[in-house]
Amino acid sequence: MKPQNIAIVGAGLVGSLWAVYLAKKGHKVSVFDRRSDIRKVKIIQGKSINLALSDRGWRGLINAGLEEDIRKVALPMNGRMMHYTSGDLTYQQYGKEGQAIYSVSRGLLNQTLVNCAARHENVEVFFNHQCKDIQLDTNTVQFFDTENNESKHLTFDRVFGTDGAFSAVRNRLQRLERYDYSQEYLNHGYKELEIPPGPDGKHQLDVTSLHIWPRGEFMMIGLPNVDGSITCTLFMAYEGKDAFENLKDEKTIRAFFEQHFPDAAPLMPELVEDFNNNPTGSLVMIKCNPWHYQDKICIMGDAAHAIVPFYGQGMNCGFEDCFVLFELMEKHGDDWATMFSEFTRLRKPNGDAILELALRNYIEMRDKTADPMFLLQKKIEARFNEKYPHLWTPLYSMVSFSHIPYKDALMKGDQQDAIMKKVMDRADIFEMWDSDEVENHILELVQNVNETLLSTQ
Amino acid sequence: MKPQNIAIVGAGLVGSLWAVYLAKKGHKVSVFDRRSDIRKVKIIQGKSINLALSDRGWRGLINAGLEEDIRKVALPMNGRMMHYTSGDLTYQQYGKEGQAIYSVSRGLLNQTLVNCAARHENVEVFFNHQCKDIQLDTNTVQFFDTENNESKHLTFDRVFGTDGAFSAVRNRLQRLERYDYSQEYLNHGYKELEIPPGPDGKHQLDVTSLHIWPRGEFMMIGLPNVDGSITCTLFMAYEGKDAFENLKDEKTIRAFFEQHFPDAAPLMPELVEDFNNNPTGSLVMIKCNPWHYQDKICIMGDAAHAIVPFYGQGMNCGFEDCFVLFELMEKHGDDWATMFSEFTRLRKPNGDAILELALRNYIEMRDKTADPMFLLQKKIEARFNEKYPHLWTPLYSMVSFSHIPYKDALMKGDQQDAIMKKVMDRADIFEMWDSDEVENHILELVQNVNETLLSTQ
Repeated sequence: MKPQNIAIVGAGLVGSLWAVYLAKKGHKVSVFDRRSDIRKVKIIQGKSINLALSDRGWRGLINAGLEEDIRKVALPMNGRMMHYTSGDLTYQQYGKEGQAIYSVSRGLLNQTLVNCAARHENVEVFFNHQCKDIQLDTNTVQFFDTENNESKHLTFDRVFGTDGAFSAVRNRLQRLERYDYSQEYLNHGYKELEIPPGPDGKHQLDVTSLHIWPRGEFMMIGLPNVDGSITCTLFMAYEGKDAFENLKDEKTIRAFFEQHFPDAAPLMPELVEDFNNNPTGSLVMIKCNPWHYQDKICIMGDAAHAIVPFYGQGMNCGFEDCFVLFELMEKHGDDWATMFSEFTRLRKPNGDAILELALRNYIEMRDKTADPMFLLQKKIEARFNEKYPHLWTPLYSMVSFSHIPYKDALMKGDQQDAIMKKVMDRADIFEMWDSDEVENHILELVQNVNETLLSTQ
Repeated sequence: MKPQNIAIVGAGLVGSLWAVYLAKKGHKVSVFDRRSDIRKVKIIQGKSINLALSDRGWRGLINAGLEEDIRKVALPMNGRMMHYTSGDLTYQQYGKEGQAIYSVSRGLLNQTLVNCAARHENVEVFFNHQCKDIQLDTNTVQFFDTENNESKHLTFDRVFGTDGAFSAVRNRLQRLERYDYSQEYLNHGYKELEIPPGPDGKHQLDVTSLHIWPRGEFMMIGLPNVDGSITCTLFMAYEGKDAFENLKDEKTIRAFFEQHFPDAAPLMPELVEDFNNNPTGSLVMIKCNPWHYQDKICIMGDAAHAIVPFYGQGMNCGFEDCFVLFELMEKHGDDWATMFSEFTRLRKPNGDAILELALRNYIEMRDKTADPMFLLQKKIEARFNEKYPHLWTPLYSMVSFSHIPYKDALMKGDQQDAIMKKVMDRADIFEMWDSDEVENHILELVQNVNETLLSTQ
């Protein structure tokens, strides 16, 4: 493969990982980021965004040789811990024994990945470089160096846009004839809050769980950090009854938390300060098509498919982009045009599918995890999966603990839902859920679906 | 009502009509357009885009007092004339006796409307003024005057964006936090062609019909002009078997037209020249939300809801925007904030509905109008509608000959489709279509739907 002069615009999670992949193939890689050097930022863990790393993300990291670096900053979470207003807790294991998703601080992970990229002598990282535009005919990127107040025009063989939901690289593509693009915001926003370490320096809630306070129309979640703190995020409507617009002052904030999160509120000494100082983040979904321009430009990660965070798959999908594009690079060698068009063809339907799954999971997390019928359904599915692993993998496991393409997971999940709807409609389900009869009922329904699929193929 | 200093950005069809409405209320209106004076352009009718004016458009025009001006340039079309490859023709009446949609040349109509606006002494029209940006705090519009090469900053009480699918005004709104926006292109494009007047100066095809050459995956349509010519438009995929990419030279163009449009091709002496000289137009759908910013900015027409042209409703929907916003102005007086937010609330769902209807109608026109089952279904619906007008208005009539909100038409159309699916599934439908039995079957199904609706209200 001919070494190329390559620009990566965006030194975030996906850009840094992709730099490692390209460096290993011997390309000359320049990574640009509009922010100042993220390695020099002091990360206060309880106050940083937390992400859940699952199997797709790990595969992307492991394949680049980075497993060891990342294990150090990742905490396994084996299940969901639901906190009810009554103070009761319910635990729901995510997958099989030993399967987990991993809590990581976005800031720490980003620093680690930039360091991993910069270790390669054929990688250079430039901060304070804002991408302003791209001349498509020559693949010349116009940067503004905000430190030295100067414009630079740099020409590359290939340009990768990994500059996130508000991507400047994609913005150039959007102006192409026949370019499909959409941005859609949820009516809900989010606010980050902190549960600091306890007096013993340890986590004040179970460290092996992702904590959820499901409240129907809104919810709070909590993910543990390696320093003993827990980062909490409240997701809620901007306007309406239980909504950000009504939490205006110390009194309304305290009253709201004491009413809805009575077990968490006492663990948040800086609740009101955090609430007032931290911005209310918005939640955007971005779709676009195609993800490339000729053999010149390719976008990956949030730049191509920004999704809501409720399946914990945004980063994982971006790392899977790297894995898939690297496979295509191995396959198509110097044929960058085919590599890029195959990337759009293969990945775009999966980006659309995880966007849909993530949106649906918001309802599941904030509402259904408080519903006994839903929890029973998950128990029945887990039981059936254990006895017939080749016939049934729960949707959550397909998404988080497998590499099944997202679009196939979405389709299979819908089939499973149709089956479970029939099973849960049984009048005797609460008494009979672990009976042979129910098991055989599911078996029969699965059989029907498989036969229908075979006959339509 | 307090007279306002108002800018309308875009002197197209909707902008010019809206200027007339505002002028009648005594506002000071400045209309800006990036193009040069469209009144000075010589319109070659056969070579201009044609539009179909239907009841919603007429209501918007009549309410502004412009009926007489527009009647002069409009030709009634009472039905569809389908041209099959065999040379056979089938005629399908659009509505009841006397109902028609009207063919108008976009260019002529635009000139007429600008003249109507400019007749008012409180309206001034500025051409060669490109909107570059808007400062939201002061409602200051930055124009670039392309004739004099100078920038101008002009401040207004209200700014209306009627600058079409690629609206600069909407572009400013898009950069607001939490603004929803999507642009989506069809894989099909269009090409305009001409059937000139015959040797006698008259139309070479029936002048009271909209002509369709339905060919499954593609189609051509033809609309008559007042000068005796007919403007034809070929709609077809960019890529694939029957696609623009394959019509590269005189030979392939001629062969394609002789194969698929054997009755039309001989009437097009400049077919190859037109095909090569006219651009292949793209078809974009644009959705956004909201359609306003505070009490300052409001977008209307294609700027708010660009749709595909297959229901002939793009302009009609824009003129209905004017009608509805004017009603809101009468109702809310000087409360512009309420007027604008009500406009978004009322009209946005209708914009979404006509977008969906227009998209579906492409399939109907290019494919179903060649299907005997579909034509029979329409005959049954028309017959039932005649006997029970209070129970059944065909979807086409709801859209084209009524003022039922588009979203209600879409919903009712879906209910009718579900009913007609059952009726058309009868094995005896070809023999029995005009029997009392089929009529009673439909009656019963309609009754069921109405009862279900009542019980859920």
